[in-house]
Amino acid sequence: MKKLINATLVGAAMTLATVSGASAKDIRLKMGSTFPSGLVQLGTLGKQLETNINAMSGGSIQIKMFEPGALVPALELFDAIKSGAVDSGWSAPGYWQGKEPAVTLFTTVPFGPSAGEYLGWMYYGGGEEMMQEIYARHNIHVNICGIIAPEASGWFREPIESTADLKGLKMRFFGLGAKVMQKLGVDTQLLAAADIYPALERGAIDATEFSMPAIDLKLGFYQIAKHYYFPGWHQQSTFLEFMVGMDKWNAMDDQQQAIIENACKANVAMGLAEGEAIQAKALKELVANGVTLHRWSDDDLAVFEEKWNEVAEEQAAANEDFARVWASLQAYRDEYKLWAEYGYLK
Amino acid sequence: MKKLINATLVGAAMTLATVSGASAKDIRLKMGSTFPSGLVQLGTLGKQLETNINAMSGGSIQIKMFEPGALVPALELFDAIKSGAVDSGWSAPGYWQGKEPAVTLFTTVPFGPSAGEYLGWMYYGGGEEMMQEIYARHNIHVNICGIIAPEASGWFREPIESTADLKGLKMRFFGLGAKVMQKLGVDTQLLAAADIYPALERGAIDATEFSMPAIDLKLGFYQIAKHYYFPGWHQQSTFLEFMVGMDKWNAMDDQQQAIIENACKANVAMGLAEGEAIQAKALKELVANGVTLHRWSDDDLAVFEEKWNEVAEEQAAANEDFARVWASLQAYRDEYKLWAEYGYLK
Repeated sequence: MKKLINATLVGAAMTLATVSGASAKDIRLKMGSTFPSGLVQLGTLGKQLETNINAMSGGSIQIKMFEPGALVPALELFDAIKSGAVDSGWSAPGYWQGKEPAVTLFTTVPFGPSAGEYLGWMYYGGGEEMMQEIYARHNIHVNICGIIAPEASGWFREPIESTADLKGLKMRFFGLGAKVMQKLGVDTQLLAAADIYPALERGAIDATEFSMPAIDLKLGFYQIAKHYYFPGWHQQSTFLEFMVGMDKWNAMDDQQQAIIENACKANVAMGLAEGEAIQAKALKELVANGVTLHRWSDDDLAVFEEKWNEVAEEQAAANEDFARVWASLQAYRDEYKLWAEYGYLK
Repeated sequence: MKKLINATLVGAAMTLATVSGASAKDIRLKMGSTFPSGLVQLGTLGKQLETNINAMSGGSIQIKMFEPGALVPALELFDAIKSGAVDSGWSAPGYWQGKEPAVTLFTTVPFGPSAGEYLGWMYYGGGEEMMQEIYARHNIHVNICGIIAPEASGWFREPIESTADLKGLKMRFFGLGAKVMQKLGVDTQLLAAADIYPALERGAIDATEFSMPAIDLKLGFYQIAKHYYFPGWHQQSTFLEFMVGMDKWNAMDDQQQAIIENACKANVAMGLAEGEAIQAKALKELVANGVTLHRWSDDDLAVFEEKWNEVAEEQAAANEDFARVWASLQAYRDEYKLWAEYGYLK
């Protein structure tokens, strides 16, 4: 009998060891954000990430999203994660281009690929690996964690007959596209979402781009500027990211890391789907509110693209990482062209 | 001593109960498949699902993929899950169109949407809900669980100058596209992957379609037929699915269900990315092996589309679910057009 009991005890102990080994250390993550949690796609995808990680981990990871500014000012998120002051963050890589110019290529590229082609490079063409390498220098683990639909080119008070009309305008503009606009004589400023409407209203800026129709609609720009231009040549698709301090990341077991990586990929699928599903409705609502939709002419787009090529060369000349990442993306896109030519209905 | 041992035993048992209460009932799932696990995308995405579910659940779900035929013949998978003989399955909805004609609209649609637009309908336009409703009648829980890149139109021994040349050909063809080909006088047959090459070699069929360049390359059709046609108007994107017997699904807790649903969405993101990344390389290799790539003329495509519209009407007239799902997809696509017109670079 004693033998039997001992055997049972040993068996029970072994089972316990196995079970508690599996769900080892619970992880708590405060997640800062550069986007308000309620903002369509940009914020709601962050909330979805929080929901899914918590649901899948059954409490082994407890992640909580905080509004921009609640932990640290929105644009200090990167540095706060780097220093360990904040555990994790929800953002878009382009916000850190002042620190690492190459990361803008992991967010969006003027005249760049749309979602499918871009995802191919990111996951199977070396994109995410280069991104992780650059972030790792700053003690941050990063995953691509969402993608949103194309942006619009912007809101103008008066119709723009050609790119020559842009000269002298004061316009809010983001990222590498802003450098293109500067070459066309535009005085660009980068304003956060909440500051755009008042600046437009009081005439501090003449025009603005911000995001896609469903998001721009919420921000109410159409109440002031009635001319809405497409396509968003500067931002045909935009990646979002989830950052975790490297020490926090390394403290997680394989299961916890797998949950985060898969939650991010699920977010990519849902972001793409939602972005496609909600724009037409928003466009209709804008038109019902007196907005005129315009498409740039082919000539206008050729001008933007020519200036963009100049900007890309300048950026590559100025920064080694930019040059390396840009070369990788270009090589991928050159090869992809053959598939684009044959694979798709036009 | 006996008391101590008893107390320890009780303690161990209680701990065990608590721990196993958290990850409640471990679930074991045998997963049948209609695709060999090694087949690019079609099979490898199933393996990836297995890997990710096991990794994320830390053993709370133990899922194991079996090769086609190992549990039941590939095309009996649906009925085997329905009856409870097999736990779960990896497949594409179109295989069950003989039982439920509408499900083909959840797989691929001739002249249908490409990935982004299709995903919007599936997740945010009511597609997956209708799919789940139809499968639930058969005691099956289903999730969209992958998407692959456009297919090619097919392999021919001689160039096809116009759709008139198709008349009288014996050709392997899948799904609703086959009904279109029949209207053009093609004698269509549905052969499984492994049976196509020998049938082509001995002349039992004159031509074949199967899948995308990266997959067709592996199957070696180019060794016999040298003319490869694009675009695959009949299959611009294709959804894969994960089915679980309803009793098995209902036995899972929220955490286990969340893991499966997110693993499926992650599979969608990775399937899309991989499909885009690997086709151009495959095309180059085919060309290096003497294959000529062709694009159908606009006139040819107009003929295919006209015949497809007849097929769609016939299918909708014959089946109420088909009519309902088709109407939903058409309404979504009608609205989407406005966004397609403005949002994208062309």
